[in-house]
Amino acid sequence: MTAPASPSYAALRKHLRETATLASVGSLLAWDQETYMPAGGAAHRAEQQAMVAALAHQRATDRKVADLLAACESDGAVMADARSAANVREARREYDRATKLPESLVAEFSRTCSLAQEAWKEARQRSDFGHFAPWLEKVMALTRRKAECYGAPPGGELYDAMLDQYEPGMRAAQVEAIFGPLRKRLAALVSRIAAAPRRPGDRLLSLKAPAAQQQAFGEAVLAAMGFDLKAGRLDTTAHPFCESIGPGDTRLTTRYTTDSFLEPLFGTMHEAGHGLYEQGLPKAEHFGEPLADSISLGVHESQSRMWENFVGRSREFWTWALPVARRCLSPLLDQVTVDEIYGAANVVEPSHIRVEADEATYNLHIMLRFGLEREMVAGSLAIKDLPGEWNRRFKDLLGIDVPDDRRGCLQDVHWSFGLVGYFPTYTLGNLYAAQMWEKINADLPGLRAGMARGEFAPLKHWLNEKVHAHGRRYKASELCEVVTGSPLSADPLLRHLEGKLAPLYGL
Amino acid sequence: MTAPASPSYAALRKHLRETATLASVGSLLAWDQETYMPAGGAAHRAEQQAMVAALAHQRATDRKVADLLAACESDGAVMADARSAANVREARREYDRATKLPESLVAEFSRTCSLAQEAWKEARQRSDFGHFAPWLEKVMALTRRKAECYGAPPGGELYDAMLDQYEPGMRAAQVEAIFGPLRKRLAALVSRIAAAPRRPGDRLLSLKAPAAQQQAFGEAVLAAMGFDLKAGRLDTTAHPFCESIGPGDTRLTTRYTTDSFLEPLFGTMHEAGHGLYEQGLPKAEHFGEPLADSISLGVHESQSRMWENFVGRSREFWTWALPVARRCLSPLLDQVTVDEIYGAANVVEPSHIRVEADEATYNLHIMLRFGLEREMVAGSLAIKDLPGEWNRRFKDLLGIDVPDDRRGCLQDVHWSFGLVGYFPTYTLGNLYAAQMWEKINADLPGLRAGMARGEFAPLKHWLNEKVHAHGRRYKASELCEVVTGSPLSADPLLRHLEGKLAPLYGL
Repeated sequence: MTAPASPSYAALRKHLRETATLASVGSLLAWDQETYMPAGGAAHRAEQQAMVAALAHQRATDRKVADLLAACESDGAVMADARSAANVREARREYDRATKLPESLVAEFSRTCSLAQEAWKEARQRSDFGHFAPWLEKVMALTRRKAECYGAPPGGELYDAMLDQYEPGMRAAQVEAIFGPLRKRLAALVSRIAAAPRRPGDRLLSLKAPAAQQQAFGEAVLAAMGFDLKAGRLDTTAHPFCESIGPGDTRLTTRYTTDSFLEPLFGTMHEAGHGLYEQGLPKAEHFGEPLADSISLGVHESQSRMWENFVGRSREFWTWALPVARRCLSPLLDQVTVDEIYGAANVVEPSHIRVEADEATYNLHIMLRFGLEREMVAGSLAIKDLPGEWNRRFKDLLGIDVPDDRRGCLQDVHWSFGLVGYFPTYTLGNLYAAQMWEKINADLPGLRAGMARGEFAPLKHWLNEKVHAHGRRYKASELCEVVTGSPLSADPLLRHLEGKLAPLYGL
Repeated sequence: MTAPASPSYAALRKHLRETATLASVGSLLAWDQETYMPAGGAAHRAEQQAMVAALAHQRATDRKVADLLAACESDGAVMADARSAANVREARREYDRATKLPESLVAEFSRTCSLAQEAWKEARQRSDFGHFAPWLEKVMALTRRKAECYGAPPGGELYDAMLDQYEPGMRAAQVEAIFGPLRKRLAALVSRIAAAPRRPGDRLLSLKAPAAQQQAFGEAVLAAMGFDLKAGRLDTTAHPFCESIGPGDTRLTTRYTTDSFLEPLFGTMHEAGHGLYEQGLPKAEHFGEPLADSISLGVHESQSRMWENFVGRSREFWTWALPVARRCLSPLLDQVTVDEIYGAANVVEPSHIRVEADEATYNLHIMLRFGLEREMVAGSLAIKDLPGEWNRRFKDLLGIDVPDDRRGCLQDVHWSFGLVGYFPTYTLGNLYAAQMWEKINADLPGLRAGMARGEFAPLKHWLNEKVHAHGRRYKASELCEVVTGSPLSADPLLRHLEGKLAPLYGL
């Protein structure tokens, strides 16, 4: 598909691409900070990030962009083409948002978060919330200032302005309307499981393997998923993430420090799901434009959760993966069967760490964070009260005590990064993924049988075509309807969980 | 020492620091390209580098800088202070140079070199000069355009304008005046050695060790040298280098692919010598200003060569290091004595790879490159004739044939990086190092005895105080006189080589 021959549209695209190129330098600075930067480089890294963020913000809010957008919006040929019209619409949305933030606030936010990350790392290691608290105060104060600049939507709350960054158009009240009933049905499922007549064996969950062997297994799985390791990497960090540095360069991280080889693999597959979305976006042609950008974090998360949970925790996946794992982790799994590993991958058990949680309890972890950050933004929860509130509500939701802040409110990197309003997108992603998975299996009836032979290409191809290729042509709610034929519903996720867990637990 | 209270001087310093912060982002992009970037990221990396280089160039050549410089130059208090006067003088020099280059040329040079590096890597691996030749043509053409913008000095040649970037004030004719006689005396020494009555044993040169063990040994040596690994790293690349990312972040690389554990160690110590200079510059206070910048590449190289050759190839160093190496590389060196390893570290033998050459023949490698690049810049040597000329002259100088271009004209990264005029600074560095080493040993009579006990702090302290702390307060020729009491001479290097090699070879 060729772009309309409009000089303004061409100039807009060029400007967007250059701005994204500059901003992508910030992505490398961030990746390096988490992977290889020596501790002594932290203060200077904050200065580098602040400078790049300020320069990128200057370019993004250049008056020239407003002129180009206006010219495109009044150009019939541009707006008659659905793809270029979507490009202009989304670029307008970003410009209007970006011009609401003063440059000084952008730089201050960037610098503060860069330093807050270092404080968080140390606080987490020492399990010392007091060390992080002053930085969280600063991050939350700056978050509120940002939210005030964006402004709450009519009838909405300040938190909505933050959520809108990650899940455009979504509001906290809508999230709560979905989360409320889901919480009840999930809690009911979890308590039926707690009283279940049988349980899958979980002895595999304590099988450890050396990091280098786990890395080799992870890379074998990445290759089978179709993640291009010549256009990407897999490294080790305190908290797994996926960072796109630009076209041809998508980096994943995982960690091998847990008690089991399974959780790190699921972390790797999760990030690779994000990575496949990034590699599937049409960046060669459209880098920097909304047409090569992901729709929302919820949709992004649907990709990671699909590979982690719908593929990685399936019996078919392990039918193929167990022999691969046996070779990579030898002799760890010589006596293990597919049934055992499938059972271990689906143990439901309340636990402390979100990124290691099972599919059923995971969403309860999210609901906890959503409530707490919503109240911190509103000012109804003081920072100093966070650990106590976390621990109290965690006990209510999951029924277990939090032993220390390292396994409590200090476990996630998000708040130190300034990512407030981000958490609910994880559960939205689970819901999108479940709804797409039903449609995928209807479209590809041989998919599951193929997966047992290591054939994941049909799934990757479906996602490339139905989701990735569009960039931000559709909004998340539109994509859901275009792709699955129905608006978002919690039913597919609950059907998936109940359908899988009932036989395993004899419910 | 406090800076004069001049608003213009303060504003100049702030501008310089911010410009350097932006430029330092380019350093991370370069480091990452050589270490961890996936191959697919190369094209985008070139765009990132070009954009950062152009933005940094814009800032460096901002008209505001000219105004600030003029204000400082007419401010008596600023110019009365020797340090701030040097800062202004050197900032003026850089500004005048930078404003001679059009921004388009800076961006094109950066983008071309970024791509040329990828072509060089592949050409080197395949030993295929034809694959690199078109890129070398482009780099040399752009180099000539840069040199023409700078302009040849009165009575000088175009090459001088390139050399002046790396060794300010030095000219090709002066270099040739030093290199000519040195070439004769070195060639005489090398031929006496070839006919020597005895030779140190070289069987250790083929002792291989796993990379991870070599890394551990290298890090133990770095720690003893006083290189701060919390403010730096050691990684593996095709070609060893030292990259300063900014205050608190100095990164070294080495390679473990050679046939011996000794050459990689000397590579590591070499880069650590550069790294100690970077860590010793007063960046906390003066980052971005000439007062926290190195004087010249020759002086930089004097630091790396001192640690590599004057320390690393000494009997005293190995008295301490052999037991450390035994532990790290066990059981490789269990039967090896200090005398054997000292002999092996000082084998003089013509060889193909510059970075693995011995102390005596090394300078002949440099003279070869100096002559060839000087002629390529002048246009009297065509790119297509480079491999033939390289091989012919190499045979003349070192007496051995070049088996392939990988071990010939494709071995070094410099030309693909656009670093033309850089090579002669290596031999200048050897000369500075030898002259300083004589002075250091006069100042610190117990140094050698201490080195045998692993005590390198007095040497590091001497270099910190006499060389590093000054930044660019002195020019290279001034520093040489201030520090050693005499102008630069080739005699100390020849005394050092003859004094060490005569007993080893029974001359």
